[in-house]
Amino acid sequence: MKVIVSKNSGYCAGVKRAIQILDDSILKYSSGSPVFTMGDIIHNPKVIENYKNKGVIAINEIEKLKRNDNLVIRSHGVSPEILEKLDIKGINILNATCPFVLKVHKMAKELSKKGYFLILIGNENHPEIVGIKGNIINENFKIINSVKEAEKINSQKKIAIISQTTQTMENFILISKKIIEKIKNEVLILNTTCRATELRQKETAVLSKKVDIMIVIGGKNSANTNHIAEISRSILPDTYHIENADELDRKWFKGKKSAGICSGASTPMEDVISIKNIIESI
Amino acid sequence: MKVIVSKNSGYCAGVKRAIQILDDSILKYSSGSPVFTMGDIIHNPKVIENYKNKGVIAINEIEKLKRNDNLVIRSHGVSPEILEKLDIKGINILNATCPFVLKVHKMAKELSKKGYFLILIGNENHPEIVGIKGNIINENFKIINSVKEAEKINSQKKIAIISQTTQTMENFILISKKIIEKIKNEVLILNTTCRATELRQKETAVLSKKVDIMIVIGGKNSANTNHIAEISRSILPDTYHIENADELDRKWFKGKKSAGICSGASTPMEDVISIKNIIESI
Repeated sequence: MKVIVSKNSGYCAGVKRAIQILDDSILKYSSGSPVFTMGDIIHNPKVIENYKNKGVIAINEIEKLKRNDNLVIRSHGVSPEILEKLDIKGINILNATCPFVLKVHKMAKELSKKGYFLILIGNENHPEIVGIKGNIINENFKIINSVKEAEKINSQKKIAIISQTTQTMENFILISKKIIEKIKNEVLILNTTCRATELRQKETAVLSKKVDIMIVIGGKNSANTNHIAEISRSILPDTYHIENADELDRKWFKGKKSAGICSGASTPMEDVISIKNIIESI
Repeated sequence: MKVIVSKNSGYCAGVKRAIQILDDSILKYSSGSPVFTMGDIIHNPKVIENYKNKGVIAINEIEKLKRNDNLVIRSHGVSPEILEKLDIKGINILNATCPFVLKVHKMAKELSKKGYFLILIGNENHPEIVGIKGNIINENFKIINSVKEAEKINSQKKIAIISQTTQTMENFILISKKIIEKIKNEVLILNTTCRATELRQKETAVLSKKVDIMIVIGGKNSANTNHIAEISRSILPDTYHIENADELDRKWFKGKKSAGICSGASTPMEDVISIKNIIESI
């Protein structure tokens, strides 16, 4: 089986940085109190398991922390409210929020200060969106994820549109188009989708046209991996989204001559390589 | 024949103001040098003829003016370059530029200062567009009037979209939608279509669904009248765009029970009423 791996595989820069900060913290605080992470460090079960074995504790409620505990904020970021609470509690914050996400936090704050009604395109339960939302200083915002929801927007204010960094450009543009039908005086569209995510999505579209089967590797709860899988599936129905090599099924490859591999931003390059080797041997 | 006249007929506020300034100037300078207008005061042949008879001289080149001549700038406005030249020549400027158009001048200047690539939606030969264009401080702009032209836009800069005040909302939105497909980092859409124009267009759409024939009154070179006629014709093919009562043809009304009348912003209410009376008697 011929296997082509997308050029943009392995961790994205934001994830690499978060992993580095966590690794450094484990070394630095190895003799002291344990290292906590706010939620799972990345959307990858195997990586999380490894860190658990190294003593890293993933928590969801900051109430579990006590003064001087070490806490790594993952690349998704958190709201300013959480940061303030952590600060008051005297937690040692190791902030690995992706710089692109931090930029969106700043934008959300400034746009709401300037009187815009903010449209935030993304999944309202995703930690990144929760963090961005926390930066909006008033109630003039709406989190939407579809054209159908965009149809219900009805604001007399000037509107600004921003999105989750891992949103697909297609959805971002489709929703923005619906919003501008409702323009009163001003619509400001700020493309906050991340370039690395966009590049992965573009490469997925190109690769899925070239091969007989596509394997998308990444967490089932990873927004960027799910978007990659959607894009691939829309072009090539023979697309399989897996988290690890155990899920591969020889039957999928029957009669296929070539396979493509794409991965989410939280998938280590070593996983990609090992899955490539397995498929090549089929 | 039952005749319904659109509620928003007669001069718009901007035209009323320009006519008032011209009338005042004729009175004020009746004993001195003549009153000039920069181009025809409004797009209405009968009105222009009346003013000609009162001694008003419409010019297209400022070279024809001499120191202390009185010049009325019509509602369409002129570029800052022309205003400066007039000032240097020592012309008595009576500026009747529509306040909405002046606002767009200011916007164009500020947006180009802020580094936007400016998309100006309108007819590049229309005096309003020529005036707006003159406020852009660099070469980073493009005047377009169709989705086809929008497809060719390819700027790496942040983009701002503004339009001729008499543009249809439909065209403005269609072109804006095409532009946002090309978003790099930012697209700012500023609705500079004038509310009075929009209201006339909306009423035209409503009225043309209710009647058997539509008469649109206004200059053949009037942008806002042409847009009204387009909207009406797209709903009711039996739409006739006329400049004056002489053009009415009894044959148009054969077998029709009701007629609608809409007019451009440069059509005096007395013309609308007299045409209404003629059609009623058919």
